[in-house]
Amino acid sequence: METKSENRCFGGVQGVYAHASRATGTEMTFGLFLPEEAESGPVPLLWFLSGLTCTHENAMTKAGAQAFAAEHGIALCFPDTSPRGDGVADDDAFDLGQGAGFYLDATEQPWAKHYRMRDYVTDELPALLAGHFAIDTGRQSITGHSMGGHGALTLAMTLPGRFRSVSAFSPICHPSESDWGRKQFTAYLGDDRARWAEHDATRLMRDRGLDAPLLIDTGSADQFADLLKTESLAEAIAARRQPATLRVQKGYDHSYFFVSSFIPDHLDFHAEALWA
Amino acid sequence: METKSENRCFGGVQGVYAHASRATGTEMTFGLFLPEEAESGPVPLLWFLSGLTCTHENAMTKAGAQAFAAEHGIALCFPDTSPRGDGVADDDAFDLGQGAGFYLDATEQPWAKHYRMRDYVTDELPALLAGHFAIDTGRQSITGHSMGGHGALTLAMTLPGRFRSVSAFSPICHPSESDWGRKQFTAYLGDDRARWAEHDATRLMRDRGLDAPLLIDTGSADQFADLLKTESLAEAIAARRQPATLRVQKGYDHSYFFVSSFIPDHLDFHAEALWA
Repeated sequence: METKSENRCFGGVQGVYAHASRATGTEMTFGLFLPEEAESGPVPLLWFLSGLTCTHENAMTKAGAQAFAAEHGIALCFPDTSPRGDGVADDDAFDLGQGAGFYLDATEQPWAKHYRMRDYVTDELPALLAGHFAIDTGRQSITGHSMGGHGALTLAMTLPGRFRSVSAFSPICHPSESDWGRKQFTAYLGDDRARWAEHDATRLMRDRGLDAPLLIDTGSADQFADLLKTESLAEAIAARRQPATLRVQKGYDHSYFFVSSFIPDHLDFHAEALWA
Repeated sequence: METKSENRCFGGVQGVYAHASRATGTEMTFGLFLPEEAESGPVPLLWFLSGLTCTHENAMTKAGAQAFAAEHGIALCFPDTSPRGDGVADDDAFDLGQGAGFYLDATEQPWAKHYRMRDYVTDELPALLAGHFAIDTGRQSITGHSMGGHGALTLAMTLPGRFRSVSAFSPICHPSESDWGRKQFTAYLGDDRARWAEHDATRLMRDRGLDAPLLIDTGSADQFADLLKTESLAEAIAARRQPATLRVQKGYDHSYFFVSSFIPDHLDFHAEALWA
């Protein structure tokens, strides 16, 4: 594993690391914030999954999460959103291919060769972190923004017992019925919509629910509201009587200004579960 | 004035605006954060001047200042660091020309035509803000990072009575004696070093001092320490018995991870002066 950078940050270290990935067959880069407490022993871990077009860097530099992670003694991992490189399949559209992995393992060519972000984020990367850093993998929570909110919700609902708490900012909630989903699922997973179910937060909420506390924030002025389909997930949560907090925040849009405004609440929420 | 964007942020609004500038003869863009309190009346203003290569956007998205400005009911203004555009003189080096205005009014050609950042930041832009937004220009403070720290210090020491408090992150402290200064001052101001004095924080501290509380943070692991010449300013502060707090923060470097780590302290510091 190669250390790309390490910067002192809120008493801890914000690092960026690269490694050859078994899951994707490419070099992968991730950001990891370790609070000062990690110098004396393993600390809990909060995953932050990012949205379309993002790399490991966007949330790491713009979400403002380190301040509150440091306060709570929690590590933060910022994975990339897809495999990358010259030999990796891509598309001219910003919402397909590189930067748009959707946190699933593709089964269709040309994507299946490298697009294995579910495997990467849920299996390879946690093991790598546990082996190299003072991370207590028995205490993990997950959050994400937009496509990353979709990732947090779908990974958590398909991995019962894994995460102590789950949250999302402006998540893509029902990709099977959205232009942020149908195109990508068709490309990555093929036409059989039954195989899309475990990658759709609304369908998972209807069918399985979640075994952890859940917090979702979304903006009343989100410019992508039609694509997020928050209403479908809200209905599924209410119908299941799933313990959850869903907040529509007045006047906020889809940007990192929204994410950073509510990061403190989300870190408080995860800290309560991670330190319980 | 053109509204480029407005995003709800920590209960207030993070806006980006562009206007034709009298001072620079170009279109200038700036960021302005207004806290919720600005809806009901004028609020105090903290200037954040940015460093080499930055636009209005870097600190606005990476410093994490809005959280604490909102807490204290303070507005933040993020000016650009130079005039820009096809017709504006530039240089291949990152530290001269566009992105490197050094907060002074150039007297030498080809720079004198547009590089009038002191006039812009201290005269034109405050008047523009006062005319268009709920800003109390009787309550202004100033901070900045690197070249912007130089700007904050030199503007404050040459405008007694203007700022209620002054702070800086990793400021360029003694540009007359640094490669971050000599080249630029020679280009913008000419060879006469006497004319450089009012743009050099160390020389100003020796000659005039500051009439406001002063807080400076700099990192022990700053990769540009040789260029900043913090030691010269520290000596001048101590020799003058200038009321000030200068902190060398262990392990921190020159990055925004450093700035964001200590933004809470700086906002507390400025709020105390602005609301006194």
